[in-house]
Amino acid sequence: MPIDLSLYLVLDPDLCGGSAGMVATAQQAAANGVTVVQLRAPNWKKRQWLETAQQLKAVLAPLNVPLIINDHVDIALAVDADGVHVGQQDLPVAEVRRLLGPNKFVGLSTNCLAQFNEAEAMYQAGVIDYVGVGPVYPTGTKKDASPVLATDEVNTMMINCFLPAVAIGGIQAGKVASLIAQGLNGVAVVSAICGKADVAAATQGLLAEIHAARGNTQ
Amino acid sequence: MPIDLSLYLVLDPDLCGGSAGMVATAQQAAANGVTVVQLRAPNWKKRQWLETAQQLKAVLAPLNVPLIINDHVDIALAVDADGVHVGQQDLPVAEVRRLLGPNKFVGLSTNCLAQFNEAEAMYQAGVIDYVGVGPVYPTGTKKDASPVLATDEVNTMMINCFLPAVAIGGIQAGKVASLIAQGLNGVAVVSAICGKADVAAATQGLLAEIHAARGNTQ
Repeated sequence: MPIDLSLYLVLDPDLCGGSAGMVATAQQAAANGVTVVQLRAPNWKKRQWLETAQQLKAVLAPLNVPLIINDHVDIALAVDADGVHVGQQDLPVAEVRRLLGPNKFVGLSTNCLAQFNEAEAMYQAGVIDYVGVGPVYPTGTKKDASPVLATDEVNTMMINCFLPAVAIGGIQAGKVASLIAQGLNGVAVVSAICGKADVAAATQGLLAEIHAARGNTQ
Repeated sequence: MPIDLSLYLVLDPDLCGGSAGMVATAQQAAANGVTVVQLRAPNWKKRQWLETAQQLKAVLAPLNVPLIINDHVDIALAVDADGVHVGQQDLPVAEVRRLLGPNKFVGLSTNCLAQFNEAEAMYQAGVIDYVGVGPVYPTGTKKDASPVLATDEVNTMMINCFLPAVAIGGIQAGKVASLIAQGLNGVAVVSAICGKADVAAATQGLLAEIHAARGNTQ
């Protein structure tokens, strides 16, 4: 089954207030409609990765929301997560696919047209399942983010695009519709959900925007 | 075959001047008698880990010197390294063993008697192959090092010890003999080899100390 990229939550340890806050945020967001949750914690030691990933799996699996692990294939293998997301400086996707086997999701961040075109070939070869496209807006939550993509470049990517793609980078409530209209399959958010006083309402608001942009209200 | 811990080189990216310097250092040190090489680069992205590990394997395998990967089981799996070394905050050793299978080396850092005693049980259960014991001296190459172990505590560990143990932390030429005399199977070094103008001579000097302390000159 293809991954549903509609509303893709990337957890941030600082904004969520640590592991317990990340698990609580994920649970609430998943119960209110996020379609994917990614654990990303570049500064953590692996023990904390493992324990938090186990807790996230326990709350997400009953809700049928896939858990994606950022970067660390070993953590994904250890907790039998649903997939791994890597950037251009992480393990090559072919290596990630080989280690994970055929039944897990592999996602790849693309930050320019050349990377996106390369990713299309990887998708056709069955190596990856989707790409992240961004940053589409300036972001404060990723320290080593690439320059913001021009709207024209995103438009060029989306022409005749068959590769499932989720927009990422600085996406807040009110900024969703144009991305869906451009042809993105969904939006990945961090601070639009993490750290919000009402995670359920934030999630529902983003979902409503996505559905409205798609021309339906389901 | 048990791991030969006699002279265990932990590569440091800064001291060696990056990947190329690490590979050159490992090659020279292995050709001159180091018995284990560990790749440790806490600040690297995985792409650099992978490429450097592949290069290290290419120079070490012909010399029959095992390559140990610090922390990242996925990198060890990707390059089919000889083992993984973890600290107390990394993946639990049982998980490392499960992911690596029975035919690889698993090492664990121990920084106090309680951890050492726990490790003995893990060794008896076939989960680990050896421990690191330290820091035995103050060290500048590990930012998050534990307090220096008291000589008494090391002595207590070594009484009736059947667990292969390598001393680590601030070990320089001239500081080896007492550790071997205490019962350690070998010494792990970083700056005693990495960054030395004459890596071969540094390696040979350390080996001579080890052999002298063991009461032979082979």
